[in-house]
Amino acid sequence: MTIAYDGTRFGGWQIQPNAVSIQALIEEALLKILRCKTLIVSAGRTDAGVHACGQVAHFESSSDTNLGQLHRSLNGLLPTEIRILNIELVPSDFHARYSAKSKEYHYHIHTDLALDPFKRLYVYHYFGPLNIAEMEKGCQRLQGTHDFTSFANHASEGSAAKNPIKTLYRVQLCNEVGGIRIEFEGDGFLYKMIRNMMGTLLEIGKGNLSADFIPKLFDMKDRRLAPSAAAARGLLLVRVNYNKDVSKSAEIVSNDDA
Amino acid sequence: MTIAYDGTRFGGWQIQPNAVSIQALIEEALLKILRCKTLIVSAGRTDAGVHACGQVAHFESSSDTNLGQLHRSLNGLLPTEIRILNIELVPSDFHARYSAKSKEYHYHIHTDLALDPFKRLYVYHYFGPLNIAEMEKGCQRLQGTHDFTSFANHASEGSAAKNPIKTLYRVQLCNEVGGIRIEFEGDGFLYKMIRNMMGTLLEIGKGNLSADFIPKLFDMKDRRLAPSAAAARGLLLVRVNYNKDVSKSAEIVSNDDA
Repeated sequence: MTIAYDGTRFGGWQIQPNAVSIQALIEEALLKILRCKTLIVSAGRTDAGVHACGQVAHFESSSDTNLGQLHRSLNGLLPTEIRILNIELVPSDFHARYSAKSKEYHYHIHTDLALDPFKRLYVYHYFGPLNIAEMEKGCQRLQGTHDFTSFANHASEGSAAKNPIKTLYRVQLCNEVGGIRIEFEGDGFLYKMIRNMMGTLLEIGKGNLSADFIPKLFDMKDRRLAPSAAAARGLLLVRVNYNKDVSKSAEIVSNDDA
Repeated sequence: MTIAYDGTRFGGWQIQPNAVSIQALIEEALLKILRCKTLIVSAGRTDAGVHACGQVAHFESSSDTNLGQLHRSLNGLLPTEIRILNIELVPSDFHARYSAKSKEYHYHIHTDLALDPFKRLYVYHYFGPLNIAEMEKGCQRLQGTHDFTSFANHASEGSAAKNPIKTLYRVQLCNEVGGIRIEFEGDGFLYKMIRNMMGTLLEIGKGNLSADFIPKLFDMKDRRLAPSAAAARGLLLVRVNYNKDVSKSAEIVSNDDA
């Protein structure tokens, strides 16, 4: 499934106590349709308030339900803040997270005096001068293979320690109407890693830090030495990339008979 | 003032019992800042759920408050769903409604199987085939000077009967990502007139009515014979046009010292 959601009022992707999660709502809808408890696994477990327009999740089912019908039923049961954009069959060895080659996230910062009310839930608003050249230098420093310990929070549930070495293939600052967007593409992201990198890039933009502080943060491997995380609302999971042979073998059926 | 707002949770522009209005919130903020009850008059009294990105309103004040400061204070007091985009001084004979030469509204219809969740509050969703050529013919039939009685509701508060003769300078169907947009520019609009015209255009698009039914509706002058109004969320007040000499004489000061 390819999934878009407005994360504003959700506690994040993952099922959790005391908050409504996107995973829980989709699993509840699947239970109603397939009459069978079905676990879904996503490419990225987006945090509370983070949005997606290209999240990918897989599940296994022995049901012979027509995919077009399943697609429509899911969207009928889900709130309009969550939309299943596409459902397709994949080979049984496909895994939404482990088969992913890379993931792309965008972070939006709008700098207008008066923030566009239609964007208010989807961008971070900062009215003030930003040193764009220095932020671009910061993006270059983040690119590549590094130990991102200084940019990773510990997941509260005490999940197993992850390898902190990740590769960012591309960190690019782009202009857009009302502000800027920073595009991140990488092989994987640690807990809160993008929001923590964005917090540092914002401090660089405000002139409080130099871009050359980033290599030092990589060396120091200490989360407490880096600035705090930027707001969740600016972050959007845009795309998950898989090897071509995965999508080739996938039979797209959802829109055929819709 | 030029004003943008997400109308979703408001009872419309105009002050009314039992609902929060945009006018009331701005007047309350002005009272706090100017310490004086100040009436604001808008170019268009948008209905409950209707949005604006270019509403215009004027007020009179003897305060010598700096306009840039007033602008920032208003946005500081207002919810982020309402943003004052600009404040400028105007000649004392300027009237937001009576000085307007024309107003432009857009109505958005999205036809994707799964509606983009980030657009869900700002477009009308109709999944199904629409006869675009016939809708364009309908737009042409609406253009010009007509008696719009068949497309006007009576305002519930029993306001004085208005002249039902209005001129639509332009009614134009445009393609946009996810669907279509119909642009209306006219010298004035009766209560619910655009949503009622859109209800008729939608019935034409679905094949339930012919575009040639529109001249008949003009002749019959009976609201009950036309289809019901289209949903408010698709409608956006985009721009109010004034004679050039009005904006020339207006001194734009809000962004100078912000």
